[in-house]
Amino acid sequence: MSATLVFVTDYGLEDGYAAQLWAAAWAASPGLRCVDGTHLIPPGQVLTAAYRCKELARAFGRGSVLCTVVDPGVGGDRPALAVECDGVTCVAPDTGLVSYLWTESRERRAVRLPIPSGVSATFHGRDLFAPLAARLAAGYPLDGCGEPLAAPRLRTELVPTADADRLRSVVVAVDHFGNCITGVRRPDLGDRRAGGLGWPGGGTDRLVTTYADIDSGLAALWNSSDHLELAAREADASERTGIRVGTPVTVELR
Amino acid sequence: MSATLVFVTDYGLEDGYAAQLWAAAWAASPGLRCVDGTHLIPPGQVLTAAYRCKELARAFGRGSVLCTVVDPGVGGDRPALAVECDGVTCVAPDTGLVSYLWTESRERRAVRLPIPSGVSATFHGRDLFAPLAARLAAGYPLDGCGEPLAAPRLRTELVPTADADRLRSVVVAVDHFGNCITGVRRPDLGDRRAGGLGWPGGGTDRLVTTYADIDSGLAALWNSSDHLELAAREADASERTGIRVGTPVTVELR
Amino acid sequence: MSATLVFVTDYGLEDGYAAQLWAAAWAASPGLRCVDGTHLIPPGQVLTAAYRCKELARAFGRGSVLCTVVDPGVGGDRPALAVECDGVTCVAPDTGLVSYLWTESRERRAVRLPIPSGVSATFHGRDLFAPLAARLAAGYPLDGCGEPLAAPRLRTELVPTADADRLRSVVVAVDHFGNCITGVRRPDLGDRRAGGLGWPGGGTDRLVTTYADIDSGLAALWNSSDHLELAAREADASERTGIRVGTPVTVELR
Repeated sequence: MSATLVFVTDYGLEDGYAAQLWAAAWAASPGLRCVDGTHLIPPGQVLTAAYRCKELARAFGRGSVLCTVVDPGVGGDRPALAVECDGVTCVAPDTGLVSYLWTESRERRAVRLPIPSGVSATFHGRDLFAPLAARLAAGYPLDGCGEPLAAPRLRTELVPTADADRLRSVVVAVDHFGNCITGVRRPDLGDRRAGGLGWPGGGTDRLVTTYADIDSGLAALWNSSDHLELAAREADASERTGIRVGTPVTVELR
Repeated sequence: MSATLVFVTDYGLEDGYAAQLWAAAWAASPGLRCVDGTHLIPPGQVLTAAYRCKELARAFGRGSVLCTVVDPGVGGDRPALAVECDGVTCVAPDTGLVSYLWTESRERRAVRLPIPSGVSATFHGRDLFAPLAARLAAGYPLDGCGEPLAAPRLRTELVPTADADRLRSVVVAVDHFGNCITGVRRPDLGDRRAGGLGWPGGGTDRLVTTYADIDSGLAALWNSSDHLELAAREADASERTGIRVGTPVTVELR
Repeated sequence: MSATLVFVTDYGLEDGYAAQLWAAAWAASPGLRCVDGTHLIPPGQVLTAAYRCKELARAFGRGSVLCTVVDPGVGGDRPALAVECDGVTCVAPDTGLVSYLWTESRERRAVRLPIPSGVSATFHGRDLFAPLAARLAAGYPLDGCGEPLAAPRLRTELVPTADADRLRSVVVAVDHFGNCITGVRRPDLGDRRAGGLGWPGGGTDRLVTTYADIDSGLAALWNSSDHLELAAREADASERTGIRVGTPVTVELR
């Protein structure tokens, strides 16, 4: 099976901008298999995009290529990059979007992408990232795309900090159902267990296994990507608690 | 032409969950043709999902496979099933989602699906339903998927009840334009004709053929799937009337 | 590479209507490559649809086929047509949807489509436009589809009018980010330069090159399709100004 190109953007679905990415990819690599990962990252929300990139990289696996564009600074002087992390390639503006991909991979390398003259100043997704991602999916080598870069820019708040009794993190995504996904991953606990989950103005001691286990109110559970998540039974946990992307959370260690 | 796999869920489009279904399907059956039927079923709304499944089954026809996941009880003890109804296969949690498919088909069979250990407790769409649907689309036999089941769970309110002068039904879907689709189908009228359509607090005697025939106000018409529908001319009938999914309606018989 | 079929509608994404278009296209031309251009044109909004058609035609290029359905008059007596404009084919109701395609092309022809009996009165997209678009994408000749038509219906407000000192136009689209795209194109200025952009109750003299150049407040810039656009730095220009699709604008000529 040839490589799959997965798009992750905040372009929305109203305007045909996503379809223009497909057109640009097919112009560079006719017939390439493309998938819309999501185009509904909240505008400019790098934390959520970084989390979704990781999930989609795991889902599509080695050989897949991500084209990730959440880029309020388009046309400015922010750099652009391409990385290869444990066999998954990702092109993106260098704004922290590959933070999870990079920090959770063992084999990794990065190159800085030159911005060619002649690309639209307002639509680098179409004119720079999608065509390059398509060429990489078709087998073009990463090293041919630019100068080596020691490391991408990383959003450090994505990695929890620990003291003796608790982990401190933030909410990295609020999903369609209102579930609040924190930056706390199973391995962050080491040999401890998760106790209560706290947030400004609230907290819960209940840790359950499935959504069906939440008889009422709120509970924490490990989600399908092994992140700790706050959920409500057939209700919207974000709405109930006021938690948003970026809200600080704590997890007690037991 | 090989089988097409059609997804119907309430996962939304923000989070990449739909794309993870594609990844899971392709892992099981590389290159399988997939289509997003819709991922915007209102959260947990089984009536609407059952209706959309029927429409999409008719659209894609014999040989197509539906993967339908509207599943607030994921991870709990609700059963999972696969059915084959007049040549269309559908995998789903057993919560009434195949009600229309089942009751409107002549040749039909069902199997109960075992839940393998090791699947995520919160994402059966990715770990159970999508891979199985992909294998069925690739030709794996239904009988090999589980033990025979006499019948799936059916949502009985989807079938209208009749007395001498009227049919009683409910609204099964409200669409993007605000059109309110009832459970009343042409054959439910037998040799009678549809008279007035009533709902709590309102009603209309106008039955038209096309949206263009509605000069103003509200009117009923037979929609493109032969269900009776309430519509407004270039306006939102649901908003005007307060009708929602599940609202009871009556149709006078003439 | 075979032709690509691109859908542009106001059908929304909730209801599976878009997927039914794919099913209808595949029934007519098995395995045809389809792309959702957008299904979120504001309901009935012909100006925006005409603009998006042009963008997508340029993106997918010669040989591509657009199936454009924004059609509040479905089932009434509005005509249907197919056009070929500089190598791009488009089928649509004749309501002004191909205005940009037609007026910006040099080689162009149009045919009027007969409405076959037996098509659903409420879903011409599924029963008329998508199958025909699929056949055209598979190589069926335009001339075989209907009688020649001198010209499609054009929405004249899409073309700016000029006096000595200014161009008058309207906003043709407001995008996901709130950017307000006007009908003013670079060539409309001739050998003049764009000065201030005005709208009812406001205006700006700032003309910038990229979104990153807008340090605060509002500014105009040439967008990726060479239309003049009003944008705000990481904010929603439409919300700030009250500008909507159809709002009149003026551009001073210098």
